[in-house]
Amino acid sequence: RTLRIGLIPGDGIGREVIPAGRRILEALPSSLNLKFSFVDLDAGFETFQKTGSALPDKTVDTLKKECDGALFGAVSSPSTKVAGYSSPIVALRKKLDLYANVRPVKTTAGSSNGKPIDLVIVRENTEDLYVKEERTVEGPNGKVAEAIKRISERASHRISTIAGEIALRRQGIREAAPGTSSHSQPMVTITHKSNVLSQTDGLFRETARQALAAQKFSSVHVEEQIVDSMVYKLFRQPEYYDVIVAPNLYGDILSDGAAALVGSLGLVPSANVGDGFAIGEPCHGSAPDIEGQGIANPIATLRSVALMLEFLNEPDAAAKIYTAVDANLDEAKFLSPDMGGKATTQQVLDDVLKRL
Amino acid sequence: RTLRIGLIPGDGIGREVIPAGRRILEALPSSLNLKFSFVDLDAGFETFQKTGSALPDKTVDTLKKECDGALFGAVSSPSTKVAGYSSPIVALRKKLDLYANVRPVKTTAGSSNGKPIDLVIVRENTEDLYVKEERTVEGPNGKVAEAIKRISERASHRISTIAGEIALRRQGIREAAPGTSSHSQPMVTITHKSNVLSQTDGLFRETARQALAAQKFSSVHVEEQIVDSMVYKLFRQPEYYDVIVAPNLYGDILSDGAAALVGSLGLVPSANVGDGFAIGEPCHGSAPDIEGQGIANPIATLRSVALMLEFLNEPDAAAKIYTAVDANLDEAKFLSPDMGGKATTQQVLDDVLKRL
Ligand SMILES: CC(C)[C@H](C(=O)O)[C@@H](O)C(=O)O
Ligand SMILES: CC(C)[C@H](C(=O)O)[C@@H](O)C(=O)O
Repeated sequence: RTLRIGLIPGDGIGREVIPAGRRILEALPSSLNLKFSFVDLDAGFETFQKTGSALPDKTVDTLKKECDGALFGAVSSPSTKVAGYSSPIVALRKKLDLYANVRPVKTTAGSSNGKPIDLVIVRENTEDLYVKEERTVEGPNGKVAEAIKRISERASHRISTIAGEIALRRQGIREAAPGTSSHSQPMVTITHKSNVLSQTDGLFRETARQALAAQKFSSVHVEEQIVDSMVYKLFRQPEYYDVIVAPNLYGDILSDGAAALVGSLGLVPSANVGDGFAIGEPCHGSAPDIEGQGIANPIATLRSVALMLEFLNEPDAAAKIYTAVDANLDEAKFLSPDMGGKATTQQVLDDVLKRL
Repeated sequence: RTLRIGLIPGDGIGREVIPAGRRILEALPSSLNLKFSFVDLDAGFETFQKTGSALPDKTVDTLKKECDGALFGAVSSPSTKVAGYSSPIVALRKKLDLYANVRPVKTTAGSSNGKPIDLVIVRENTEDLYVKEERTVEGPNGKVAEAIKRISERASHRISTIAGEIALRRQGIREAAPGTSSHSQPMVTITHKSNVLSQTDGLFRETARQALAAQKFSSVHVEEQIVDSMVYKLFRQPEYYDVIVAPNLYGDILSDGAAALVGSLGLVPSANVGDGFAIGEPCHGSAPDIEGQGIANPIATLRSVALMLEFLNEPDAAAKIYTAVDANLDEAKFLSPDMGGKATTQQVLDDVLKRL
């Protein structure tokens, strides 16, 4: 099988980590019978400055027509408002209907000095406040701006269903390798704020309950947690959680919080997943402070590659990458500066490749 | 001066901690020349079940006409949707125009094994998604619900101004007691998500920048942080932050996150502040799991009493309470179960009173 992968480095350190993602795909053992072809695609703030569009039609078209999956690096946010600019990743998620943003957060055997964390945040990726329907009126006391938070039964249902499926899949992997996880049962925690937003978050909560009550999820333990308590509990008892499903904005906030628990955003991958398509995306952003120094941590990208492969139905290839990355972290000889080490992007990559 | 204080225990452990709040006011040394009178007021889920209203008019009227301040305990959220019920504290904040929710989070000398945390979250308390304007339509693919997030220039300006004032006041207290804090300069961090919500959160950000550019805040260092990074940084580097100003929902989430950093929600106070009125409110909620056992931690309430007094212009009385509470925590002889101790609510209270 040959997979065609779009490469969208974007801005900042996106350009330093996406090449590492390409390299690891090329280096996968031939025994997997997987081949890759690549196409370079533009998006981001620099693209906006050059062409007037942060997400050229060509990028979207090529992804839709030619590609099986993609890797997305990062985009800079301008520090002051720039007319006409808006985030290309948010647009891409909607245009390709990549409705789930999957963000696993996990300690490795060597890195967890406390209890092992092994959770995944499954974030709805197409609606909530991210519909970006806003307006501003000039009132007697100054400006008043409003934004729409939209929650639909359809999007809530499909995100909860994929969360349940991920919980079952994780359980399957755990059962195949006993002793690698502290969870004994698949669990999904529904996050919302229905005590204030009874209609919108209420709909999310009820729909999630319904979706997860399906027969195929009968082995999944379902719980819920108000978003503010969820942040509290996530920090007090992170080892407790397995799969957390949340509307878009809460998922965005929770996944950064969870990343803080494992030491560095430079470790945390994500995949934007739709039906038959997945974009791997490291969670760290464009990191202007370290841009151009060759010291960005490639781990988040390498794990995002693996995550993309999982959702393209290549679990064996994904497992190879996870294992190599975990070995690099556990040996802790080649770590990038965000992890307290001195290795460059290239040195970390080489160490992981050696272990493939 | 005599202050009349409304007592609103509400539900759950609210009924166990609010009496402790009353006791500490009664026990303040007479040298302060402060007297208190009290009026008991109803609100909460049980009140709703009895009377059909979670916040009786009488409670609001009495607070408006007779009281200088109040203490609010907690309210239960029903675990399934109950028609007609909605949170009385959210309503109270709006009806009394208590526009600022002030939530200090601080380690004491004895409790911080890492770096000392000494920050305060200043949360806008009247708008954002808490306007609770929602509607649901039945579409071809099922229900679609929408909520309004409203951000006004007026509310953003006054919350930012009070945040700046709090930063200056904290700096004054630090200068009067050198060595008690790690901050050398007053700082306000503006939290928003204007990279997605350019109009609403953009308005919050710009208005906050403007308000804090006023001459009187020239000594205040002003920064900003996107809400997801803010959660990440809050966990990685909490000692860095001084005053954090945020729209309502982000403030709600951030303050629970910050509470996790100091070990227990049972320690974290808040005050709902308007012009000339303040309601002290512990952040912990009604805690049905420990209700009725007499083991709720009264510290959050005692600190909320102090915070209320600060905003009623009684800083000396407030300081007495803070000092007594810190001494209880530092000695760590009478700690409630949430802190790993065995003391009852009454024993913790008695220990604090002894130190007044
Ligand atoms: C850059 C920003 C628009 C984006 C988001 O909020 O989704 C980022 O924070 C993320 O989590 O991918
Ligand atoms: C109970 C709930 C409505 C409330 C809020 O969201 O404001 C609580 O979480 C708080 O922080 O005071």
